This record gives sequence, C-alpha cells and structure tokens, in this order.
Amino acid sequence: MTQRPIRLNAFDMNCVTHQSPGLWRHPDDASWRYKDLGYWLDLARLLERGRFDALFIADVLGVYDVYGGSRDAAVRHAAQVPVGDPLLTVPAMATVTRHLGFGITASTGFEHPYPFARRMSTLDHLTKGRVGWNVVTSYLESGARNIGLMGQASHDERYDIADEYLEVCYKLWEGSWEDGAVLRDKGSGVFADPSRVHAIEHEGRWFQVPGVHLCEPSPQRTPVIFQAGASARGRRFAGRHAEAIFTSGPTTEIIGPLVADLRAELEAAGRRREDAVVYTMATVVVDETSRGAWAKHDELRAHGSDEAALVLLSGWTGLDLSGHDLDAPLQGGHQDAIQSAATAFLGSHPDGRPWTLRDISAWASIGGRGPVFVGSPAEVADEMQHWVEETDVDGFNLAYAIAPGTMRDVVELLVPELQRRGVHRTEYEDSSLRDRLFGAGDRLPERHTGAAFRRTPDTAAAELP
Amino acid sequence: MTQRPIRLNAFDMNCVTHQSPGLWRHPDDASWRYKDLGYWLDLARLLERGRFDALFIADVLGVYDVYGGSRDAAVRHAAQVPVGDPLLTVPAMATVTRHLGFGITASTGFEHPYPFARRMSTLDHLTKGRVGWNVVTSYLESGARNIGLMGQASHDERYDIADEYLEVCYKLWEGSWEDGAVLRDKGSGVFADPSRVHAIEHEGRWFQVPGVHLCEPSPQRTPVIFQAGASARGRRFAGRHAEAIFTSGPTTEIIGPLVADLRAELEAAGRRREDAVVYTMATVVVDETSRGAWAKHDELRAHGSDEAALVLLSGWTGLDLSGHDLDAPLQGGHQDAIQSAATAFLGSHPDGRPWTLRDISAWASIGGRGPVFVGSPAEVADEMQHWVEETDVDGFNLAYAIAPGTMRDVVELLVPELQRRGVHRTEYEDSSLRDRLFGAGDRLPERHTGAAFRRTPDTAAAELP
Repeated sequence: MTQRPIRLNAFDMNCVTHQSPGLWRHPDDASWRYKDLGYWLDLARLLERGRFDALFIADVLGVYDVYGGSRDAAVRHAAQVPVGDPLLTVPAMATVTRHLGFGITASTGFEHPYPFARRMSTLDHLTKGRVGWNVVTSYLESGARNIGLMGQASHDERYDIADEYLEVCYKLWEGSWEDGAVLRDKGSGVFADPSRVHAIEHEGRWFQVPGVHLCEPSPQRTPVIFQAGASARGRRFAGRHAEAIFTSGPTTEIIGPLVADLRAELEAAGRRREDAVVYTMATVVVDETSRGAWAKHDELRAHGSDEAALVLLSGWTGLDLSGHDLDAPLQGGHQDAIQSAATAFLGSHPDGRPWTLRDISAWASIGGRGPVFVGSPAEVADEMQHWVEETDVDGFNLAYAIAPGTMRDVVELLVPELQRRGVHRTEYEDSSLRDRLFGAGDRLPERHTGAAFRRTPDTAAAELP
Repeated sequence: MTQRPIRLNAFDMNCVTHQSPGLWRHPDDASWRYKDLGYWLDLARLLERGRFDALFIADVLGVYDVYGGSRDAAVRHAAQVPVGDPLLTVPAMATVTRHLGFGITASTGFEHPYPFARRMSTLDHLTKGRVGWNVVTSYLESGARNIGLMGQASHDERYDIADEYLEVCYKLWEGSWEDGAVLRDKGSGVFADPSRVHAIEHEGRWFQVPGVHLCEPSPQRTPVIFQAGASARGRRFAGRHAEAIFTSGPTTEIIGPLVADLRAELEAAGRRREDAVVYTMATVVVDETSRGAWAKHDELRAHGSDEAALVLLSGWTGLDLSGHDLDAPLQGGHQDAIQSAATAFLGSHPDGRPWTLRDISAWASIGGRGPVFVGSPAEVADEMQHWVEETDVDGFNLAYAIAPGTMRDVVELLVPELQRRGVHRTEYEDSSLRDRLFGAGDRLPERHTGAAFRRTPDTAAAELP
C-alpha cells in the first residue's frame, strides 16, 4: 500500500445539515447551532486537533427552488436555507486556532473586486496567512434574480468575467504595494514610501479600477485559490488559477480520469502537475468496529429525507425531480433525462437495472455527491489509501452526516489510524496555508499566473517614463 | 449638576492612527497592530470592562488624495490608509465579550442590499443581537472611481438610493420570515413553515429583489441603525431611520443647535425626541492630576503631524490645503474659502484674528473634529456633564489619541469617576444592543419606519387573494 500522505480538509456551510439532507432530524445532530459562535469555535478546535489542512466553507446565495418549481420544500427541510454569510465565521475561528486554514466561498458575480480584495487581505492579515478563496462563478438563478443579474451572462462568459475579476485582484494583491513599501519608521515619520505603492490602472472589459490597493501586503498576499468547477471551462479556469481543487463523485472510476484531466490542465497552463492539491469529497462513518460503523450508518440512513435529497439534486442538476413515483424505474419523457443524468454521474446501476429516484435520493442523503466510507478505522483508512492510489487525489474533502458527531469520530478514531500509518501529520509546522500545501513559502510561485502582476523595484523602475 | 447618564461609545477604524494624524509616531502608540487579531481582542475586552455601549468602527473605501492632488502624503503619514474591512473584526471581538455592541460602517453605494442584508443578519446571530449598522451614503471620490460609480449620483440622490436600500433591507429583515416560522421540529421533520416565509417582491427604482431573506430571524432582526451625516438631507435621513446619531464639532455652541435640530427631525418623522441616542465625538486625555494630564497632552501634541492633519482635513472639506504658509493668516484667493470653512466649522478664532493652517492642523491633530477634554478624572467628568447639560447629547463617541493608551486611561481613570457620580453603569444588563439603548426590547419600535414592513400572521393573511 502506498505511503503517500493523505490530506484532510473539512467541508461545511453556514447552514443546517450541509450535505446530508434531512439529517438535522437525527437526535444527535446539532448543526442547527450554525448561527452560534460556539458551533464554529468547537469545530475549529476539533479540526485543528485532527491536524486538518483547512476548513472549506461552501455557500449559495439563493434558495433551491427547482424541485416542484417552488422553494417550499427547501424551506421545510432546511435544505441549505437558511444560510448565513461564510466569511464572518472565520475571524472568530481564528481566535481559537493557530494553524487551521480557512477556505471561503465567494462568487465573482456578487461583489465588485475592489472591496472584495480588501476583505480577503483583511482576513489574511487577521489570520496571519491562513486564508483560501473558493472562486465561484455560477450560482443559483434564484440568487442571481435577487441582485438583478438574471440572464446577464452565459456560463462561459461568467468564467471570462471571473478571469478578469482575478486579474484585478492579482494586481491589487501582488502589484500595488511593493515588498518593503511599509517602513513604519517612527523616527523619520514615514509610514509607507509612496513611490513604492502603485495604482493598478486596470481598464478591462468588465472592470475599471484605477487606484491602489487599500491594504498593506498580507502574509500570503493572494489567498490560496480554491476551485471546484467541473465543466470543461471550469477545469481550464482551475488549471490556470487553482491551488486547491475540489472534486466530487461516487467512485474511483469517475474521479480518476477527472484528476488526470485536471493535472493536464495545470500543465497546459505552464504549471506543474502537483501545483494544485486535489481533494475529493467523501463522508466517513467510522466506529471502533466494522459492525458498530454499519449500525451507525443504518441509523443515519433511517433519518435522511428522500424529499430533501431530491430538493438538492434538483438544484444541482436543474431537473425538477418532484412528482414521480420514487420506486418506479425512471423511464419515458422527462424521466429519461433524469435517468441519463444519473447514469452519467453515478455510472450504471450495479444491478443492471434503471435507477429509481429512491436509489438516487438514498445515495445523496449522506454526503451529497461523494462516497461514504463505512467501517472500522483500519477499514476506512484502507479505503482512503485505495482511493488515493487509484485516482491520484491528494486527499479528501470530508463532509459530515451529523454535526459534530461525524467529524468528532474522524478526529478521535480515524486520524490516529492514519497517523499510525504515517500518512497524516502528527504536528503542524508553523506556516501559512500556502506553505502547508506546497512547502515553498507564503507567496504564489513564480509560475502561477498571478505572479506576473508583481511589482518589484526593478519592474516599477522600468515603467517610469 | 445633572445626574443624567452619560453614554460612552468608542470610535475606531481598521487602520493606523484613526483620528490623531501622525500620532502613530508616538513611542507608546501601537495602533499599527490594527491588522492583528490581538489588537481587537484587547480593545473589546477593555471597552467591556469600561461598560461601553458599543465600539463604532468607521470606514472609508478610498484614499485621501485631495491634499496636493495626490495620495502620496496620505500613504506617507498612514492617514487612514492602509485601511482594512471593518466587518471582519467583529466576530473575533464577539468571542471575548458578552455585552459590548458593535457598530459597523457600510456604504449603501458599494454592495447590493441582498448579500449585505445577509451579512448583517449573520453578524447579529453570531453576536446574539449586538450589532449596529452605520449607514454611509457618501464616500471619497477616490473610492467611487474604483468601483465604477464616479459621477453616478448626486449627494441628495445618494440619500434617495439609501432610502430605497434601507427599504429593501427592512423588508428582508422584518418582513420575510414571520416570528414562529422556524419550528425546528425533529418529530414532524419540519424545520421551517414555508407558508410563513415570504418573498419580499421588491420592485423599486434602483433595486429589484423578488426573493426571501436567506437568514432566519436574528435577535434584533434590523441591526441598530447608526447615522452620522451632517447635511440637511443627512439629518432628514437620520430623523427617519437612525437610532444612534454621531455628531462632531469643537464646541457646545456648535453641537447644541445641531442636537436640537436632530431631535426635531425625529419628531417630524413621527418618532419621539429620545428615539435616537446622540453621541458627540470627543477625545479624553486624563491623568490622576490635572498637571499630569496637561503634560500628557503636550507630549501628544508634540508628536502630531501638521501635514497628516491637513491631508485628512483636505479630504473632509474637499479643499486642497497644501502649498500654503502654515503660519500666515488665510486670506485672499483660494485661502478665503479655507478661512470661511474654518470659521463655519470652528467659529471665530478666540483671539479675534484669522485662522492659520497651523491653528487648524493643531486643532485637528488630536481627535479630528471633536473637542479634547484634558484634566484629572473629576475635571474631565465635569466637562462631560457640562456638555450633556448644554447640548442635550446623550453621550460621547470617544476617539483615541494613541492606542491603547487613551482608551486604557479612560477605562481606568475616568470611568470610575463617572460611576462614582452615578452617571455611568457599573454592570451590564444581559441584553441586545437595542435593548441597552432604549430598554424596550430587541426589536425596532412600532413607530420606526422599518416596523411597517413586518409580516405577522394577520398581515400575511390579509394579503391572500
């Protein structure tokens, strides 16, 4: 078995029952505490105890209203609504941790890059270099309608806008304040040398930003760029920008080729295959014994909600999954489209029969689109090592079935097993998030597209008239 | 002497040397630690120890570039640049306090109300009802240029936009989720009753927001509305919306009539004179003895910077104060406009002669536009009580000369004196920020304009077809 390290990342969202629709009803679930600081402080401490790379906080700015053409089922089941702002949990968690990274989802479609770049720099300062940004370009149409963007941009055009959005951010983060611009010299009275603070003078197709960045350089300058888009255009975008990539799919057969393709995109963008860390989504149900784990699993399954799962799946696929017999084979008319989507995503049904909605909702009711690893610590560790070997992923983006129980089991039972095998760190180095991922310092490497926007004394002088 | 309580609010900004230009050079100043969480945690603990109502965090999204037509002097002196996002300091401070309120500045010109309303609800949840929003409509032109808004709206039109922006927010905060909509009933599996969660269907001149609010109701729903605009249109806006109003001016003669006018605006808007708490800006230099305080004051003055003060004053007034003899009377040409502005704002010079730039910059170099109260605890307390009596303000918005020294002196020396006089609380009640200010519960009172957007089971039923 490979001794390749297995990276662990946690997946959460500022809502009830993130990837386990209906499981807020489980007697031990306390994910409804998402609006209390204590929920986040406890989670952050737990993940740092488990030596995780980072906590990745998903987001949607809208409600799931494809199912039945209404938001009612989403509201009833708390299917990712209500949902709070992800960014605001991070400064609190930073107060009780020293090492854990934080990846925050923010869309390039909702806020102008000028104030957004300031938000991220502020957070990188406050966390001392522990911040990642999960770049999202798409969003639920129900969200876009509320900020007047409906129909404004096609899928591919959204990525073009995102490319320019990142260019503005790189210019602000990398190119506005030179290293050494801040002198903070009480004697001479010079806080910063204005000749080393540059206006970015960006004039693009979608954004005009003439000014200087409002923040002095933060430890990482550019936050670690996360990306999770699965389309061809999304993978190209990831190849160019991403330093951590999140995939999701149920089997190694589906994830393996995806990872190969992502690494090829990295090379196509002039980067190295290992220049992005790839995490694939999974949920762990672990107990001291295999039997105990399966009992836990069955009990979790019993508390899931088919309808809540179909609400999320309808939103993800754009197909209204309401109004059908859950146990009939999906065939004919509108159902053929559902059957194709299911087969494309899940592969053929293991029994060779058509998928039913019951199959699909059961599969999605724990851990959304990822696999569920059930077993003793050794069994789950075996499965994870198998996945890493088969797919070339660097690690896992771990969702929870119930909070905080799922993650507590991971930290208390699985992590020690991985550590025993020598595939998971036992201590943190003192470092920024980027340095933890790549071991090459806090800043973007020279071969990353963002590095081209740096201003050094030399490049700055070269531009003088 | 009046026994009227004196409310204390602290004034800060996510930057170096907020209202005391140049004083980052003072040997004891550590305001450059603004980018460390520790700065904010220490400050929050200190203010809670001093039983302050709240910490008010100012903001500008731009740089001061009127002075000399360039940002260079602002950068050199750290005159409110670099400046970080104010919002992100709050969740961290909430982890180490239980009572202190937080007023955050955010402009209605920079972010769409739909995501903004979610940010504030999230923060009100995380702080358990301790959040205020300082509504800003204007901004430095240097900021507006960077988000493509240059010349988009006149001063008065900006207030019209802000009125609609608040209407959208009130609808989301007060009218979308009824009280009792969230059932969280594990038995029936109903998290929230969709019939009690309403789309706001806002179609206005500037904003179209059809959807539901993304957050379940937070303790205060609408954050406490702060306002600081001093123009006639700004005062009208405050009369309609504000629950805490911040004024600034050097003398009781200037502040008294302003407070009277603000209270009249409240009545004109169908509210009570006491429906907004008025804080006026001041800086306290206190020591055990009068002599010690004056020595401190002189030492602070010696570390101020004329140029840094003129940078801020140029930005505030829009008049370029560069290039003149600091000690010559301001007379003739462009200087007449400066003389008029100074006289309008400061009154006539006490010696009957014209103001010089040296006078103006010295006056602004500690505590910006407010008075400086220098003396023993008893002397400063006398002065504060005198101000309250003369002007009808409810309390003070206290800036610092140096951080954390100024505020530490206030908490350790002045606060005990005010407590001894029975004009400052010795313990907090367990309450939301709004309840602390008005003692009438967590929610907006019925007579506030925002309350009209509430949905109760009755109003909701009345709208059914």
